[in-house]
Amino acid sequence: MSDAVEAPAYPVDQVNRVKRLHERARYDHETVHRILDSAALCHVSYVIDGQPYCTPTLFWREGTRLYWHGSSASRMLRNLSDGEPACLTVAHLDSLVMARCGFNHSADYRAVMCFGQARLVTDPEEKVRALTMMVDRFFPNRTAGLRQSTTQEIKATAVVWMEIERASAKIRAKGVGDDEEDYALPIYAERLPVRTVLGEPEPCPRLVAGVERGADLDAYRPGRLLEEALREAHAEAYR
Amino acid sequence: MSDAVEAPAYPVDQVNRVKRLHERARYDHETVHRILDSAALCHVSYVIDGQPYCTPTLFWREGTRLYWHGSSASRMLRNLSDGEPACLTVAHLDSLVMARCGFNHSADYRAVMCFGQARLVTDPEEKVRALTMMVDRFFPNRTAGLRQSTTQEIKATAVVWMEIERASAKIRAKGVGDDEEDYALPIYAERLPVRTVLGEPEPCPRLVAGVERGADLDAYRPGRLLEEALREAHAEAYR
Repeated sequence: MSDAVEAPAYPVDQVNRVKRLHERARYDHETVHRILDSAALCHVSYVIDGQPYCTPTLFWREGTRLYWHGSSASRMLRNLSDGEPACLTVAHLDSLVMARCGFNHSADYRAVMCFGQARLVTDPEEKVRALTMMVDRFFPNRTAGLRQSTTQEIKATAVVWMEIERASAKIRAKGVGDDEEDYALPIYAERLPVRTVLGEPEPCPRLVAGVERGADLDAYRPGRLLEEALREAHAEAYR
Repeated sequence: MSDAVEAPAYPVDQVNRVKRLHERARYDHETVHRILDSAALCHVSYVIDGQPYCTPTLFWREGTRLYWHGSSASRMLRNLSDGEPACLTVAHLDSLVMARCGFNHSADYRAVMCFGQARLVTDPEEKVRALTMMVDRFFPNRTAGLRQSTTQEIKATAVVWMEIERASAKIRAKGVGDDEEDYALPIYAERLPVRTVLGEPEPCPRLVAGVERGADLDAYRPGRLLEEALREAHAEAYR
């Protein structure tokens, strides 16, 4: 019976079908969401007067919906409010790969491209909720202990949401992959791993006496992979 | 006299002028190029039938020109060959910033957006030269010791170039920045650094006996910041 049940996946059509090296492609929710939840930073593409823009920004996922934010005055947000087509991409570089010929030089990576219509969050209650999750997705329950947002602050922050209509993930994780006959050549080849890690926390120099880092931030410990801490925080925030 | 000499900079107009938090903006070549040369991965935005795409890819800079590559069959490259408007963006996430209110939560980062017309490299000699630099920009002089590229391999790899017509860099590096009255609140705040570092090299398990990692790869040593090694390699490759 379990064989007949397909895992939830995003629909595939000409917009998101991976054409190049399609054996690396995945469309299932689990793969796509894991790559998204492992990142704090995404790049959003949108078009203004025929000119493409690629803007880096913090973002987060809620189910099959993506959220990101910015100033209400920004170029991107003024243009996305009416439901403009957008593409939100996340990429993790996992290694540089040195091969025995130029053609096989490569990189290991995990990337996902999400397509949909970006829209401003306009409902006031939903906006306050989204602004809470913008913090709590990274630091679960943190907002409850913060100075409350003012009306002016809420007004100055725009939140954009996009239902993921299509998505494709692409993963390369094979390290050195040379042509069979090239392995006999006396040429050095390696996979050079790349990792994004947390450094030593730098407490604000103006902390009130006695205020210390809480145990709720233990997931963000020095030397840990950023992506591990982010996935853990996401799972906790949306438990 | 020296006061009168302006550093080279990219022109600013409505396409690339930073609107939001413009005090973080830079347009000079030195700042823009340093952010670019510190990265291996970029995101390229382009438009097909009104749909924006955001594709992550390896890239490199030569003067005021950017290069990236992909398969001749890929969606992006088939559409960029005629000189299509594109935006190539690089972003380095340097920290997550926890503040005393939601609004001042932020991140430290260095980002650059480059605008221009993307075109295929069509001249055969220039293409071979570019394919060499695609490897040597990361690993100076490496191509000289590799198995030579075949005609088929050169044909299968498309190289795209784009003259940077406009560019803007945006840098945030201030850590915690709370409203003055909020510093008196008993709330924990910190700057949490994020670093992308090199791991332990993984030599190909099928190396010919006696073939070892050369001293030319010493710049890529475990624990080092990826961006440092990349800047050093770039400077060496274009010395």
